[in-house]
Amino acid sequence: MSTHYHSQDAQDRYFMMLAIEQAKHGLYTTRPNPAVGCVIVHAGEVVGQGFHPKAGEPHAEVFALKEADARAVGATAYVTLEPCSHTGRTPPCALALINAGVKRVVIASLDPNPQVAGRGVRLLEQAGIEVKVGGLTAQAEALNRGFLKAMRTQMPYVRLKIATSLDGRTAMASGESKWITSTAARDDVQKLRAQSGVIITGSETVIADDPQLNVRSNQLAVSPEQVPAPMVVVLDRRQRLDYDPHANYQLCRRPETLYWRNDDLPSLLKTLVSEHQCYDVLIEAGASVAGSFLSQQLVDELVVYQAPCLLGAKARAMVEFNPLSLAQQLRFDIYQHEQIGVDLKLTLLPL
Amino acid sequence: MSTHYHSQDAQDRYFMMLAIEQAKHGLYTTRPNPAVGCVIVHAGEVVGQGFHPKAGEPHAEVFALKEADARAVGATAYVTLEPCSHTGRTPPCALALINAGVKRVVIASLDPNPQVAGRGVRLLEQAGIEVKVGGLTAQAEALNRGFLKAMRTQMPYVRLKIATSLDGRTAMASGESKWITSTAARDDVQKLRAQSGVIITGSETVIADDPQLNVRSNQLAVSPEQVPAPMVVVLDRRQRLDYDPHANYQLCRRPETLYWRNDDLPSLLKTLVSEHQCYDVLIEAGASVAGSFLSQQLVDELVVYQAPCLLGAKARAMVEFNPLSLAQQLRFDIYQHEQIGVDLKLTLLPL
Repeated sequence: MSTHYHSQDAQDRYFMMLAIEQAKHGLYTTRPNPAVGCVIVHAGEVVGQGFHPKAGEPHAEVFALKEADARAVGATAYVTLEPCSHTGRTPPCALALINAGVKRVVIASLDPNPQVAGRGVRLLEQAGIEVKVGGLTAQAEALNRGFLKAMRTQMPYVRLKIATSLDGRTAMASGESKWITSTAARDDVQKLRAQSGVIITGSETVIADDPQLNVRSNQLAVSPEQVPAPMVVVLDRRQRLDYDPHANYQLCRRPETLYWRNDDLPSLLKTLVSEHQCYDVLIEAGASVAGSFLSQQLVDELVVYQAPCLLGAKARAMVEFNPLSLAQQLRFDIYQHEQIGVDLKLTLLPL
Repeated sequence: MSTHYHSQDAQDRYFMMLAIEQAKHGLYTTRPNPAVGCVIVHAGEVVGQGFHPKAGEPHAEVFALKEADARAVGATAYVTLEPCSHTGRTPPCALALINAGVKRVVIASLDPNPQVAGRGVRLLEQAGIEVKVGGLTAQAEALNRGFLKAMRTQMPYVRLKIATSLDGRTAMASGESKWITSTAARDDVQKLRAQSGVIITGSETVIADDPQLNVRSNQLAVSPEQVPAPMVVVLDRRQRLDYDPHANYQLCRRPETLYWRNDDLPSLLKTLVSEHQCYDVLIEAGASVAGSFLSQQLVDELVVYQAPCLLGAKARAMVEFNPLSLAQQLRFDIYQHEQIGVDLKLTLLPL
């Protein structure tokens, strides 16, 4: 009995892993919807797979059921996120699973979306389907950090990206900074952008670098045209961009660029969720913007691209914030460290 | 024929790997001698293993041959470093291999020591023994970077160790710095010390921290008492330690501490090799000493223990050196990155 259970568990983990791989196909294209994958298994064999490709298009379950066709009867469905129970732009997936004759549904994580929130599970159970929740939950949730956090807290998931030298510098004292990190690291940043609903930058960065902040890499698994363009917010508390006589910056020419002209950052983040459905925020700005978000504890994830070079003690600091003692330092947990080209990429979670 | 050769090659790599594992047992104890391992293989079976434990004690080959006994006749000996051909404190190992009736000798790296330098190989070949040089050479040489560099160039292998925050800071502006990195990282430093013939520090570090700079961790595979104590050199160009009225620092009380009172660092390094047989140098000092060695290109390996924390833009820089432009930056290759406790350890090689 216990051996049987163990083997069922191992099998569930294996097929959920396949469902997660499916979900990843939508990682850069589903925004503001979550990336979801589904695998249908009949008698130990995968008979259908699918993922949600894009808001407005069918959900993962629909594609998987279509492929499974009649073999869905009596099958187990593995879904990375709780099937929806409400009719939105598409009919509810819980009903589709019931109608297809699925016998068992394994769900990696419940959907905190108030329109779903356990109702999908209840609908399935009421139809006599065996439902198991859990298994690879952390891996499944890692695909939709922004969506899940926003549904739970009405605040977005905030990534702060900084490219720096080994000695924590982002530019020479003169401002010279092109390029500290390698092409490979800069290409990797495109993945962060492609996952983000909005990129926040500062007026100083606009004036100094005139960045495009768009998704343009062909290193992504999908072509950049399929990626919904992230919105751009420029922090411009002192309205420097209004008064700059040469203000013909690339971002300023975009009609959809939003200017945020006060220093209430929590309110900005809340607005991004409530008014713009931006759940994943990427900050690409200078040391003072980084310092503001960090010291107000508004950062969920710090991504550092660290070039193995020393720029010296007079070069510019990566974060402007000034703790008075070691007790006031900001500490992180190393979530991941990997080499990207010649550089190091550190993913850190605030403690 | 080619299949046979290939399989011989794979077998040679396997047994050389075992010989390297043997050599590692002596990593912290053989100084100033190199760490060497030997494995004797008869008809595909290991019949003897040994390593050089300590200067003055027998070499690796002697232990391995003793264990192999009569089974050494017709056997293959795997040695990580060319067997010696001269009578030092022990008789030449090449002769011991010949006398034992070994048929074939595989050597990972030649000994650049002018007293050996190919003579071991010649002695073996003249006795009709088949000699193969090469295979896992890089791995074998990694055990004796200092010895090999000193024999080749009369300069030691210089490791610079720095413990820093993510933003490249070693202390708060006030000097507060205990502790930025974790116990695990500080324990790991003991391994660097145990591999070093000398530790170089600066008078500023002595005055600020009064460090012991000894080997005291029980995280090593051998007990700290078996490790030859590294010599300590204090850089004290301005003779600050002479004039400090409170100069009762731990290092100053050690009679064997050497004070270096000029700024000719290359000459110090040469002296350490020629007069003190110190081939592996560890620098544990402040930002200005680190900057001097780095900017004079005297560092072979930079080891950074990086704590995942931010200390802010006013905290102290990890390296005092001031390039005028990006073109003057110091660049490195990432040799290794690993997590040690909660911190990151980066091993970097200057480009």
